[in-house]
Order: sequence, then C-alpha cells, then structure tokens
Amino acid sequence: MPAAALWRSLRAHQVYGANTDVGKTIVSTLLCNALQHHGPVGFLKPVSTGPLNEADDRHIQRYAPHTQTKCLYQFADPVSPHLAAHKTGTVPSDPELLAAIHHTLSTWSSQTATKHALVETAGGVHSPGPNGTSQADLYRPLRLPIILIADSRLGGISASISAYESLLLRGYDVHSVLLFRDDYYQNHNYLQEYFAKKAIPLVAVPAPPARPDPRDGEAVSQDEEAMGRYYERTVREGRLGAVVEALERKHMERWERLEEMARKAEETIWYPFTQHQGVTAKDIAVIDSAYGDYFQTYRAAKVENTGDQGGGSALRSTFDGSASWWTQGLGHGNPDLALSAAYAAGRYGHVMLPGNIHEPALALAETVLQSQENPRLKRVFYTDNGSTGMEVAVKMGLRAACARYGWDASAEPIRILGLKGSYHGDTIGVMDCSEPSTYNKKVEWYRGRGHWFDFPLVGMKDGVWKISMPETALGDELQFGSLSEVFDLEQRVDSEAGQRYREYIHETIQRLVQQEGIKFGALMMEPIILGAGGMLFCDPLFQRCLADVVRQHPELFAPGQSSPPAGANEWSGLPIIFDEVFTGLYRLGRRSAASFLQVHPDISVNAKLLTGGLVPLCTTLASEPIFRAFLSDDKTDALLHGHSYTAHAVGCQVAVDSLQTMMRMEREGAWQEYQHDWTVASSGGATTAAAAAPAGAPTTGPSVWSVWSHDLVRDLSRAASVEGVFALGTVLSIALKDQHGGGYTSRAAQGLQQRLAAGSEQFAVHSRVLGNVLYLMSSVTSKPESLRAIEEVLRGGLL
Amino acid sequence: MPAAALWRSLRAHQVYGANTDVGKTIVSTLLCNALQHHGPVGFLKPVSTGPLNEADDRHIQRYAPHTQTKCLYQFADPVSPHLAAHKTGTVPSDPELLAAIHHTLSTWSSQTATKHALVETAGGVHSPGPNGTSQADLYRPLRLPIILIADSRLGGISASISAYESLLLRGYDVHSVLLFRDDYYQNHNYLQEYFAKKAIPLVAVPAPPARPDPRDGEAVSQDEEAMGRYYERTVREGRLGAVVEALERKHMERWERLEEMARKAEETIWYPFTQHQGVTAKDIAVIDSAYGDYFQTYRAAKVENTGDQGGGSALRSTFDGSASWWTQGLGHGNPDLALSAAYAAGRYGHVMLPGNIHEPALALAETVLQSQENPRLKRVFYTDNGSTGMEVAVKMGLRAACARYGWDASAEPIRILGLKGSYHGDTIGVMDCSEPSTYNKKVEWYRGRGHWFDFPLVGMKDGVWKISMPETALGDELQFGSLSEVFDLEQRVDSEAGQRYREYIHETIQRLVQQEGIKFGALMMEPIILGAGGMLFCDPLFQRCLADVVRQHPELFAPGQSSPPAGANEWSGLPIIFDEVFTGLYRLGRRSAASFLQVHPDISVNAKLLTGGLVPLCTTLASEPIFRAFLSDDKTDALLHGHSYTAHAVGCQVAVDSLQTMMRMEREGAWQEYQHDWTVASSGGATTAAAAAPAGAPTTGPSVWSVWSHDLVRDLSRAASVEGVFALGTVLSIALKDQHGGGYTSRAAQGLQQRLAAGSEQFAVHSRVLGNVLYLMSSVTSKPESLRAIEEVLRGGLL
Repeated sequence: MPAAALWRSLRAHQVYGANTDVGKTIVSTLLCNALQHHGPVGFLKPVSTGPLNEADDRHIQRYAPHTQTKCLYQFADPVSPHLAAHKTGTVPSDPELLAAIHHTLSTWSSQTATKHALVETAGGVHSPGPNGTSQADLYRPLRLPIILIADSRLGGISASISAYESLLLRGYDVHSVLLFRDDYYQNHNYLQEYFAKKAIPLVAVPAPPARPDPRDGEAVSQDEEAMGRYYERTVREGRLGAVVEALERKHMERWERLEEMARKAEETIWYPFTQHQGVTAKDIAVIDSAYGDYFQTYRAAKVENTGDQGGGSALRSTFDGSASWWTQGLGHGNPDLALSAAYAAGRYGHVMLPGNIHEPALALAETVLQSQENPRLKRVFYTDNGSTGMEVAVKMGLRAACARYGWDASAEPIRILGLKGSYHGDTIGVMDCSEPSTYNKKVEWYRGRGHWFDFPLVGMKDGVWKISMPETALGDELQFGSLSEVFDLEQRVDSEAGQRYREYIHETIQRLVQQEGIKFGALMMEPIILGAGGMLFCDPLFQRCLADVVRQHPELFAPGQSSPPAGANEWSGLPIIFDEVFTGLYRLGRRSAASFLQVHPDISVNAKLLTGGLVPLCTTLASEPIFRAFLSDDKTDALLHGHSYTAHAVGCQVAVDSLQTMMRMEREGAWQEYQHDWTVASSGGATTAAAAAPAGAPTTGPSVWSVWSHDLVRDLSRAASVEGVFALGTVLSIALKDQHGGGYTSRAAQGLQQRLAAGSEQFAVHSRVLGNVLYLMSSVTSKPESLRAIEEVLRGGLL
Repeated sequence: MPAAALWRSLRAHQVYGANTDVGKTIVSTLLCNALQHHGPVGFLKPVSTGPLNEADDRHIQRYAPHTQTKCLYQFADPVSPHLAAHKTGTVPSDPELLAAIHHTLSTWSSQTATKHALVETAGGVHSPGPNGTSQADLYRPLRLPIILIADSRLGGISASISAYESLLLRGYDVHSVLLFRDDYYQNHNYLQEYFAKKAIPLVAVPAPPARPDPRDGEAVSQDEEAMGRYYERTVREGRLGAVVEALERKHMERWERLEEMARKAEETIWYPFTQHQGVTAKDIAVIDSAYGDYFQTYRAAKVENTGDQGGGSALRSTFDGSASWWTQGLGHGNPDLALSAAYAAGRYGHVMLPGNIHEPALALAETVLQSQENPRLKRVFYTDNGSTGMEVAVKMGLRAACARYGWDASAEPIRILGLKGSYHGDTIGVMDCSEPSTYNKKVEWYRGRGHWFDFPLVGMKDGVWKISMPETALGDELQFGSLSEVFDLEQRVDSEAGQRYREYIHETIQRLVQQEGIKFGALMMEPIILGAGGMLFCDPLFQRCLADVVRQHPELFAPGQSSPPAGANEWSGLPIIFDEVFTGLYRLGRRSAASFLQVHPDISVNAKLLTGGLVPLCTTLASEPIFRAFLSDDKTDALLHGHSYTAHAVGCQVAVDSLQTMMRMEREGAWQEYQHDWTVASSGGATTAAAAAPAGAPTTGPSVWSVWSHDLVRDLSRAASVEGVFALGTVLSIALKDQHGGGYTSRAAQGLQQRLAAGSEQFAVHSRVLGNVLYLMSSVTSKPESLRAIEEVLRGGLL
C-alpha cells in the first residue's frame, strides 16, 4: 500500500480527460509552459500507448523543453492500455505502477526541487489501465488532486460532467477544469456555470491550430511551427494564469488545513470515550483520506522535523487496526458501496417508514433474515445503531416476559440475566443491562438492573488453548489441542464441564429467583466474544448451557406458573436476546456468532458490519411470539419506538449490497487461504479433507479460522509479556500481563500500541486498547500479504 | 409534478447514449424492429435537433415502418437542445416537457395498446435539455427504466461507465446495455464483464454499414438500401433476442415485486410506532421512488379496479406531508446530496473518530457551531440520531450540575425540569425526561424523572392569534393582532403576563426544591414547538421566562450553596438544554428556534434537517463550562459515550453541504415570497419596509413567517371542525375538535387524513396525525405553486 501522494514543495496533479482525444497532452503542454515560470516542472506519463514518436512525453519535450519528462510504460498499439499491454506480455501490476509513480514524484520532489508535476492519464477517467482496472480506481490510492480536461466537442458537456461525477464517487478533489474554447458548441459557457457552483475554476483555452493536410509534403514542419506559435502565444497572453493561480491556492489551502486540523479539532470536537484532560493537538491524527485497510495520515512530525520534508510523502499509510471501531468490512473508499449509497440517495433520499415500504428496506429485511439461518426470526425492526437496536431488544424481551408471566413492571423491577463484562451500548437503558463498571458507574442515571454471571475464558497461552474458570464450582482449567475442539459442542455438551456448568447456572438462577425474589425478563448475551468489555472470549459451552438451562427450565422464572405454550418458535423460560452488533455478519468468520453455539435466539441485533462499514444502521430481528406480545386493540400497546431515519434508504441499500457481497465471498471460498492455515494447524499439520481440496475449488471451510495466522497466535502466546491471546475471524486479541491487575484503566498495552503506531518504514498501525488488551481487526476483504506485513510489525513489537 | 411513468401493459424505456453519436437511433430502430413481433411499438423523441429530414423519428418511420413515432419538439440547429431552443424562442418548460411525454405514453398505453415504447434522449446522459437542465435530471421525475447505448469507439469504455454512474447517482435503473461490436477496440468484451457484475445484460450488435462517399450521386439510395438490409438481417439473426427477453423479464419482475411488496412488508417489517393488530397489506403504501416533495406510490387499487389500468400510470405522486418524519429539507432524490454522500464514501468510507479527525467531521463542527450564533456553544459531540444526542445532553447536564452542587447521583435521584408534552426520543434514558404519557407509560423500564410545567398554548382561532392558559395563576387568555406580536418578546417580557409567568415558575420551583426536596440537574426544552407531544406551540414568552428564572435564581436549586462562578458563558442555576432536533435548522424558518426566545442554551441538540433529509446524524453542542465538568486525571470521568459510526464521513459531508445550501438560501432571500405574504398579513395589509423592498433585492425577512399562506391559516381557523391552527416556517398544524378530548389516541383527525390521502386527480397527500392534530410539513425547497395546490386540497377537506 503506497502512501497517498502529497509533498509540501511539489504540487503534483493528475491530468484526467473527460474522454479520449480531448486535448489532454496539448493542455498539459500549455500548463508545463505556464508553470515553468514558477519553478521546475515535471511531466509523468505512467502508461502510454501508440507509436513512440507521437508519445505524449515526446510532445512535451519538444514544446515545453524545460520540462523534465518521464514515461514509465510504453506500448506500441494505439489502443486502450489493457489491450496494448496484453499484447506485449510485460505488464506491471497495479501496485508496481503506483509505486513507480510515487517513487518518481518523490525523487523529483527531493532531488530536482521540482515545483509542479503533471501525471497524465490515458483516454478517459474510466479507461482501463494495463491490468484492466479503471484508471480512476487504479490511481485512487495516490489520490492526487485532479486537473480535468473537459470535452469541447458536441456531447462534451455530458462527457465532462459524467467524468467529474465518476471522479467524485471515488473521493477525488478536482482542482481545476480546462478545455478548448469552441464558440459553436459553447460547452465552456455551460460548464463554467456548472463548475462555478462547485467552486472549481474553469478556464477555456484557445483551440490549437488545425492540422495541415497530411498529403502536403511540408505538413509535419508546418504543424510543428504552428503548434510552437500556439503554445508561445497562449501562454504569453496569460490564458493559463487563472489555472496556475488556482492550483497554487488550492495546494496551499490544503496544506494550511492539514496543519491546522488537529488543533482545530482539539478546540472543537468533544471526542467520544476520551478523557480530554491532557489531550493536545499532537494526540490527534489527521486523516486525509482512507482506502482499503489503510488511513492516509498527515505526518506533521515528519514535516516539522525536516523543514520541507524532502522525498517522503507528507501522508502515511496507517493500517486501520480497529476496523474503524469494528465497523469496517469491505474496505474504505469502496466505490461499489459509494455507488450503492448514491443510487439510494438518488432514487429515494430518505422515505419515512411507518405506513410505507420501499425496496431497500424490504430487500434488507429479507436478506438479513435469510443470513441468520434462524427459523425463529421473522420480523425486522430498524434503528440507527447497536445501542438503539439493543434498547428495542430490551423493550421486546421485557414486554414478552411481563405479558406471559403477568408482571406489572411499573410496580416492581424486572431484570436482565447476562454475563459479566457485557456491554450493549451507550444509551442509559442498555447501560442498565450491564453490571456496574467503568463504563457506566459515573453515569448519573445508571442503575444496573440484572444479574451477571462470571464465565470461563478461552485463550491460548504457551501454545495451548486453555479455558480458565472464574469459580471453583465450575471445575479446573481445561486444555485443548485446537480451537476447533473448543468449539466442538457436540462432543463437549455432555462432558463433565457441561454438567457442572448447567448445575451451577441452575442453582444460581434458582437462588436469585426463589430466595432473592428477583424477576428476570430476558437472557442477554454477546455470543462468543464480549467486545467492549475487554475482548473477552467466553467458553461457547458455557453460553450454550446458559441458553439450555433457561429454555429447559421455564419453571425457574415464574414458579407456580403453568407451562409455556408449545410451538417450535415459541420462547421458553426467558426470551433470549443475542447482541451480535459486534460479533455478527462475518466478524468472527461466520454469518452469525449464534451458529457457533447452535442456539437460535428469539431476538438478535446486528449493526456495525451490516453496512460493510459505511453508515450507521441496525436491525433487531425477532420471532413471531415476541412480535405478538405487542398486538392488541390498544394503539399504545404497540412498540412505540422509531427514529426519524428508520430504515433510511441509503443505509438499507448499502447493507443489502454489503451482505450480498459477503455472502458471495463465503460461497466462492474467498477465505480459503485463511481456512487452510487453521485447518492444518488444528489437525497438527496433517492434511484434512478441506485442506486437501484442489486449489480454487470452493470448499466448505473449517468452522473455526482466522485471517490472522495460527503461527502468529502460537508465537505470541509464548511471549513473556503476554497473558493470553486468541484469534477468531477477523479479530486478534492480545492480553498483556499487568501487575496492577488489568481492566479498562490499565496501561499495560500502551507500549505495544505505541510501537505499532511507530510502525515500519512503509506503514504505521492504528490500534485500540481495552485496558491491558490490544486487539487488531481486519476487514473481510483484507489481503493476506497485507496482514502478514502487519504481523511482522507485531512480532517485532512483542517477540 | 407528473407521476413517474409506469404502465402494466406498456413497457416504456428511455434510451440514453453514453455519448453523442454512439448510434442511439440505429439501435432504437433495431429495437423497434425486434419488438414489433411482440406487439405495437412506439418511438418518442421528446426533443430533436438538426435538419428535419434527418430527424430520428423520420429514420424510424423509414426503417421500422410499423412503429408509431412522435417528436414533441424539433429544433433545426444541429447543436445541443439548450442552444438550439434558445434560438427559436419557443421553449417548453421542463414540467411541460415531462407532462407531454407522460401524456403521449398514457395515450399510447390506453388507446393504441402499445406494448413497447422507446423515449429517446439527445446526446449524452448529461446533455442539456431545452432549458439547460441536464437530461438525466430533467427526465428524472418520470424515472423510466433505461436502455443505455454504450460507446464502441476509442475511449468508449470510460464514457459508458461514467454515463452509467451518472444515471445511478440519480436513482435510475438500467435494464439493458447495447453497443456496436467493434473487434478492434473490443469495448463490448470489457463492458460485458463490467455489467455482468451488475446483473445488467449487454448485447453487442453488428455495426451498421459504412456510409457511402457522399460525392457519389447514388449515395443516398445506396445508403438507404444498405441500412435496410442491415436492419433486416440483424433482427432476423436474432441479435436482439437477449435484450427483448431482458426488457420483458425486468418489466415483469418490477410488476411482480410492486404487487407483492406490501404483503411481504406486512409479514416481515416490524413497523415503528405502529399497532400491528389489524394492519393489512392494504394499509402499506409501496413507494417506488421519491423526488422533490413527492413520493411515487404504487396504485394497487387503481390497477385492481380497472384490470389493466388503462391510461393512468400505476404510480401516483404523493406529497410527502410529514417531510418524512420531519427530516426532509432539500428534497427527495437530490442529486447534489447523492454526490456529496458518494464523495465522502469514496474518499473515506467511515473513519473512526476517537484520536482522529477528518475534514467532513471538522467542517461540520465548525459549520454547525457557526449556524447557531450562540457564543456559549464551543464543542461538538456527534451521535447518530436525536434520541442518542439527547442522551448525551442529559449526561452532560447532570454531570455539570452534580459536579457544581456536590451531589452524589448514585445515592439520590437527580431530576429534569421540563414542559408537559415534551418528547426527547425513544431510548429509555431520554424517555425518563418526559412525564408519564402514552409514549412511555407501557415501557417496562420507564421511570419519569422530573417535573414538567404545563404551559400557555399559541394558536389561531376564528382569525385571531390567541394564547390560552393552563392555570388560572397565569391569567386570562391573551389575543394578538399578528403572530409577530406573539414573538415580540422585547415588548412582552416586562408585560403583566411576563411577570405572572415568572412568579408562577419561581414559586413552583421553590416549592419543589424546598418543600419536596427535589434536586434538578437540568432545564430541558423543545423551543417553540413540542413536536411529538402533539405539535404544541408554546408561548415563547413562557419559555423565555423559564430560562430567565432558572438563570437569575441559582439559589433556588441548591439552597445554601455559594454563588456560581462568574463568566459570560458560565451556566447559572441549571444547565439549559435545548432539544432542537425537530425545531432547529430552518424547520421553523430560522437557523435556530432558540433565536425566537433570545436565549442561548448551554447545550443544544440538532438532528433531522441536519443532513438535509438524507441520513441519520446528530450533533450535541455544548459550552466550555459543561465540557470542563468532565475533565480530570481520571479516565473514567470522561464522557464515556460514542457510537461506532460517530461522525461518519457520509453524514458529515452531506450535512456540511446541506447546511451551507440552506444558509445560502437564507442569504439569497430564497423565502422572500413567503416572508412577504406574512409581512403583509401581520401589518394588516399595509406595506412594511420589508414588503416594500424592490423585487429581487435580498431583504432581511420578517422574523416570523411560514411557507403556508397566511390566508389559509386564517380561513382554516374559522372552520367549524377546527379547534385551532398555526403555521410557522415549514410547519402547519391543525387541531381538530374532538368531543372525547383529543390526545394521542384520538381519531378526530383521521377523516381529514383520509381525504388528503384520496387527494386530487393529480396527486395525493401523505400526512401524519398526532391524536386530534393533523400537521403538514414541507421541505425548505418546496415551491409555492406546489404548496398552494396542497392548500386547495386542504381547503376542500375542511371548508
């Protein structure tokens, strides 16, 4: 991942054409001539097709002789680069091409004091590069500001605006528009007005002289002479002045903004989950853009230390190691999701939901229900984030329980049964669903309403998967040969541990209800991993047993009540709520974390990855029996909850496309390489059926795997400073030893976090810590080579 | 607003070209020939430029003689329609053009049993129409499905993909792509793969024969003969078969989906604020798309009643009279907002906020602070919706009060001071900020924590603005000559009413605190209008007095405590929280509702209109003293709140662009016509300074105005069935008389709601009721002519 391209002294722009043959090279030549009065100019043609003597850099050399020019790849056929390159056989990969451009610009910036550089593309914005990737996508990681050459011909208004829209869809900034003046079609008039509204200056330059008749023997020299005069006169008359000024101004504005942003943010933003005391501008990373798994972060320090920072770009690739607070699934700056969002915005904007239906809301409801493979779940309630979705889940669960058991919740408190270390969101209602903790104890209105079980924790230590018990009643520590064995509930459910778990749970509930008189309204869990509570990996058998005891012993919760109604999808004991806001939708490698437990919850909440990591949206899924608890003749018995942007079309459309993309990846075996790694590991190196499948053939992957390599987990688990480690799906969690005991206020992980932030020469790693735990999280599209490079940094920081 | 175009028996498609000269008419001719085997075919050229004998409909007449053709507007110059039309002087307006197309298609559908119609555009997708509007925008209200003619020439890959993206940005569905086969450039291969991923069939048809040399005397007849053979052979060889099949299949799929959506929604969606008992599919409106102020709603009943519904489109324009739950500001399907969203998605995706800053988050913080014109507000906390933003506001206010007064909130309850009928959101914490009501009393965990003042209500009855008092202590009903007088607080603050208000408030608080021992942590209000509580228009003087008493008498809240610290931005008495989620950002015609009161709150919450009506986002603004209450050496004293998508780039970028658009409209006097109407009314018909300003000159509008006409409000206030009425900004509220007393469960407004839903021949009106109150709400871009038409329906329903 090359860094995005930005240097203080070098004003580098990418020249895109609204179409082929709009005069990109002629305008570039004009610009080279105009810009050279301000300092050395470079012209870079990354890929050129067509006869060598017509090549664009040759043209520049002839008519703007003071310009240093370079062409990285030249193909003889005058066709699109993807066809031309195909014929030659020597094709640079997209990353190689980007690296070569970055290197050239860096060198120009540091060694020849180049002040302006133009990087000229071929054809139109979406013309394919050598590997077939559209140029607008191919060059996106560099995110150079754009000079767009508009089309002055008939139809050129349309081509120019569409090209501009395609660039914006990819997050480019267009700094200037140029085109030939054509007084018949007058495109420049229309486009000037259009771009003025976008605050983008447009300059119409005189059209070049017509080419002489090629049958004339002196055509070539006549043409050269005429072009020379054209360039000289156009620049002399100052036709480019406004563009040169705009490029300079926008470059300086961008710099000034990057330099002030951290300070302004420190003055203006009230950061979530942040103790501002002691926070200074230096603690705030300025993110200029993001692409794939990487932020592009402004390197203020670099610039400060070196004055003009020389060859290094002022932007640095920083791995988004928290997956942007666990949301990221399909990569930053994903053009498909951008287009999905734009389509829904263009087709609907936001349409209020009650009384209405629109396609994205219905399609998402169908898709997300299907994704859960849970026959109980039939209804979708939309909210905006995990916290509000869990508020709805609580309202659902409590109502169903109160209705069945005939409790008056206004007269006596109804509580939640859950796990210690759980966290279900920041609104006060769902804060009350967790035991008193750092997160909530200072919230003035917090009143914990529940009982929370301590539970057995899974982790690898010294190369062995272990389950440690919080209570002697649960027995001794367990050890396993592989993570798959931990998840092998068919084997484990009738084990001694399983029996002990069930007895302990049964006795505890019995005591709470019968002796302490507590009424419980719902069982609520984050299946497998309790995220915000500290990346706590709960023994899946314990959660399974908890669900089993609740369902198999309804008599525990309302002694003396009659049996619950029969029915396959009827809840029993308590409504079971799974908070899959963090764990669901492939975060742990599977569609649902519930599937690890083989438990079908009555209510399930998904958010975060739901939209692939783009916009907030949440679904609370419920069974029909839960839904029916709100049916009556009385309007006020309805679930009176609903945010204004409920089921907003943009979020729903993006979520439909994200879910379908992730489900397709699963079907097509996109994670086979990772699955293979963990299959081999779990079978002790022997080849299993899945691992032996021919390369490329979709297989049913092993059930338990991670994008993080098994070797890394094993090696880290042996590090002296590590208390325990685990990986599952896209999550890697490292608990560091803390002599002061860990917890949210621990500082044990800060050293490692700082070493990751320092990173390597090529990139840095952003990570988040939860007390003594440092975790890393990828998207589901992260590339193995990218993750292995991160792992190297991690090894360097710990081993 | 013509309805979007959809008929059951007529398959109408719009033919767009990826560029000019890509062969639209030739492909259309091929299609007409292929489609005629399935039924009558129509070809409509809305606007044609160029010599008459070359006109596209003539071409069709010659080569597809069974096709009925029509050209609506013909201009002789072969240039873009906006230039050609300009020269002739007879230019149809955009709505006229849309109406003519709709009429033609309707006629074909009903009278000639036309089965397929092609509506051919001119040039490329963004080529300007006769009035300069880009065609993709101009024809958007019809939202015909698209046949895109791709570009087979050099550069055509780029042009085709960009054109496709421009269409998607506007919410079009592309049903098929066609282009000429060119084996040298092979664009069809690349594009086939590209569109296959979008599930859009692409067909490459043979290129037409080359035109003979025009110097040859027989050129014309040779050409005609060759073209005839070309059409005949291409169709005979079945080259169009896949397209014909795809058009038919997609048409039928669309129909089947529209027909099943209501039923599927009824089975799948758990609607917010909806008692599902008795809800059937018939109660659910299927919204196919939305544009401007209108939904396009599927008319299932129309289709059912008439079998094949004949000439009427199966879609109907329905005015979005709830502004989609109060969110809508800049119109549905707004292409500028779609592009803003896409840009942010393309540049960032979502970037986690803590520790970072990105341009949209910072720019919005700066913009929203500036918009409030409140020197106290310095800090921006982001959440996802009004409810979560109010949860944050509560946490802020309570912490600040507890810190200053030394209260231990875990030991004793701290309460909110507010107004009866307030509503601050659906999460349980903010539900607790309102008095027990329909909305919350059945929520199991609701525990109201506060005291809520009853307050004087503003409304017009029998042509007179009146303020009615809920308590005798507040005096007798007041009457005013105009709404401006109600808001003239400079005059009113020292009036007898003001004195009574202050005494009453002071005594009440004193009693609650000193006799009942209640501790209050914040004063919380929706300024001017309490929305969800029933569109209650509070006397602004009462709210002003409430704020004044709280601030001027800090001794009330913590008797015996020392005076608060000095400082202009320091809070006094209690932190004052304004919930402007509904009332802010021009909903009432002003940037902030606080400005009506001339009170600067310490905490202010905005959402809904913040993003112009596109995606959820909320800002909670706070003063520095509030912010400082969370500063300490202890990490856990921080405001531990923050949703994963906090300050998501898409929302922030859209909000920046929306706010700037609305503030520009204000500067440029976009609402002068409305302001003039209310100025004249408030001066009793006399011309005031503002009203007398020369037309077009931006004036400082009168402070109190509405998009709803003053005459309408006056006339409705005299209706026998009306209890009271008011309008302010974009809001019109009509309280109907209810002999059973009104309230949320009242059905008094349902008759009017049904009459509006029946609508006129041209359109229906979607509205929401709150008990006996029916309200209508426009966007800030609604056109006067559109609103006046709505008003006619309203008059018809009430007068």
